[in-house]
Parts: sequence; C-alpha cells; structure tokens
Amino acid sequence: MLVLGVDPGLTRCGVGVVEGTPGRAQLIEAGVIRTAATMDTSRRLLAIEEGLEEWISRHQVEVIAIERVFAQHNLMTVVGTAQAAGIAMLVAARHGLEVHQHTPSEVKASITGSGRADKAQVGLMVSRILHLDSPPKPADAADAVALAICHSWRGAAVKRLAQVVPSTKRPRSWAQVTSVRKVMA
Amino acid sequence: MLVLGVDPGLTRCGVGVVEGTPGRAQLIEAGVIRTAATMDTSRRLLAIEEGLEEWISRHQVEVIAIERVFAQHNLMTVVGTAQAAGIAMLVAARHGLEVHQHTPSEVKASITGSGRADKAQVGLMVSRILHLDSPPKPADAADAVALAICHSWRGAAVKRLAQVVPSTKRPRSWAQVTSVRKVMA
Repeated sequence: MLVLGVDPGLTRCGVGVVEGTPGRAQLIEAGVIRTAATMDTSRRLLAIEEGLEEWISRHQVEVIAIERVFAQHNLMTVVGTAQAAGIAMLVAARHGLEVHQHTPSEVKASITGSGRADKAQVGLMVSRILHLDSPPKPADAADAVALAICHSWRGAAVKRLAQVVPSTKRPRSWAQVTSVRKVMA
Repeated sequence: MLVLGVDPGLTRCGVGVVEGTPGRAQLIEAGVIRTAATMDTSRRLLAIEEGLEEWISRHQVEVIAIERVFAQHNLMTVVGTAQAAGIAMLVAARHGLEVHQHTPSEVKASITGSGRADKAQVGLMVSRILHLDSPPKPADAADAVALAICHSWRGAAVKRLAQVVPSTKRPRSWAQVTSVRKVMA
C-alpha cells in the first residue's frame, strides 16, 4: 500500500511517501512544503495545495494519512493547522483517494508500542523500521513518514479485521483495533 | 464593489453577494452551500469548494470577505469551521481575488453601530439597509450578507484613508479605522 503521510502546517507541511505492509515499511520520499509567514494565508494555502497535487501525481499514492487536528492543542496555531489539513483532505477527495486521520498518540503507539513515546524514541524507531542511519529531516518530514507507516500498518489490520469480524461486531476505535491486533498476532 | 461574503461552516456555509458603497448596499443573491453530516469531511470540503467556485464564476465577484475564525470559539466545531474558511481562501487565491477577514464584532459594529448587537438587531438592520421585508434566510445566509455589507463599507473606508493618511501613520486595527471614519464623516 503506497501511503502519503501529511503532517499539516502552514509554515512547514511535512510529507512522506511510504510503501508498507504490517511490520515492514520502505521510504519512497520525504520532505516538506514550505510557505513564508509573510505571505497572505490564502496564498499559503494555494501553495500547499499545489505542493500536495505535485506529490500525489508524482508518486501515484493510494491513500492519504493526515494527523488529526484537535482544537484543544495549541490555540495559537490550530486554525492554520486545521486549514492545511483541510487542503490535504480536499486534494485527496478530488483524486478519489481514501483519507484517514490518526492522532499523535496512535502514531506513537503504532511505531514504538507506546502512545506516550517522545520525539526521539519515535525518530529512532522510524530510522530502524526504514533501515536509515537517522530519521528523515526536518522533524515535520519525519512526522509525516511516521504517519504513513502508522497508517500502512493500521489500515491493513482494519482490512484484515473486516474480513474476519462481522460488521456489527467491529470495534469503533483504533484503540480497540490495536488490542484486537495483539490478540490476533 | 461586488463582494462575496462567506460565513464558513461544514453543514451550512452561508454565502451572500452584495454590491456596496459606503452607507448603501444592494443584495444580489444570498444562500447556503449545504453538505450532509453523514459525508466524509474530505467530500464535504470538496462540495464546498465546488459551490464557492460556482458562486464566484456566476457573479464575477471582486472581493471575498470571510468571517474570521478564532480557536477560542466553540472548540467542538472550530476545526471544521476553520477548514471551510480555508477552502474559501484557497478558491479566492486561485482566482486572484482579494481576501479579507472580519470578526463578528466588526460586522455587528459596521451594520448596527454596536459590536455587541444581538442577532435580531443585526437582522433588522440588514433588512433596512437592503430594503427587504425580512433578513435573508437561513441565518447563515443573512450572516454572509452582513459580512459582505461590512466589507464593502469598511474596505472603502480603508482605501479612502490610504489616500489621505501617510502609510506610517495608518491605523493598525479596524477599531482604529472605525474611529477615524467617524472623525472624517
């Protein structure tokens, strides 16, 4: 499954393309779409849209995984972050791609086994999973890659689950999916 | 000045086109772009984009005025509202249109003379200004029209000010602009 992970932001929007199957992942490309704080917000959103269009077209991704934005997190930047995430969703919908959102805790839990892992631990595990000497830079690119890995692993688990568990008995949250995965593993 | 006012929202995105000069305004069209809560957020944003594209093309508007979204307001809906506002900004930037944001208090002050006016007072004044029997319905359409009136009046004041006041002495906030307008009137 070719997944584009997006760590949304106006100044640095992290992007990472990963080819993954549960337990394994290969980095295709990681980077950031940057826009200058001196630009009008509307122009910044347009630049992010153009950047994402280019990444999606170049890599022919199948799925987009975006970090879920919570209003409770950092009131100063939440509006801009939500708008950048919205642009990623819009571009995905335009291309008929699946869109999935994951919380930072879900990403950490998926990569390190703990939803409370710190940035360094996540970075270390991302490097190990991808057989790299160090995590992709800058941090926003690494976060986008972690999201893509998380989704390629979790998405596969959910699909597998859907095949064996009747829809009425399917778990509602990813937390439940994680525990079911552990039982199934 | 032909202004499109946008009261952003996922379920009902208010839109209103007004032709205005300071103290006067004519309603061209008002309505809402609706999307179903059962739809995926990415598809809802795509539907809002398509709706706004259609309104902009049909009316050949010159400026878009959007209600400014604050993170402090209604944490439950702020992410969706910010995303709908972001789509409006994106569409405006794509068409090379000016984008302006106004706070609800600025709109109320502009329409009624008081930033603390309630919805009924704003609705009454909107009806009077536009020579209508009642304010446009639903409320989101009326709010979008109020935004467009506010911008067509304030925007003109700022342009006039820019011609007579050296840039170094220009006020930084709309609140100051309002008081300068009163002095100039």
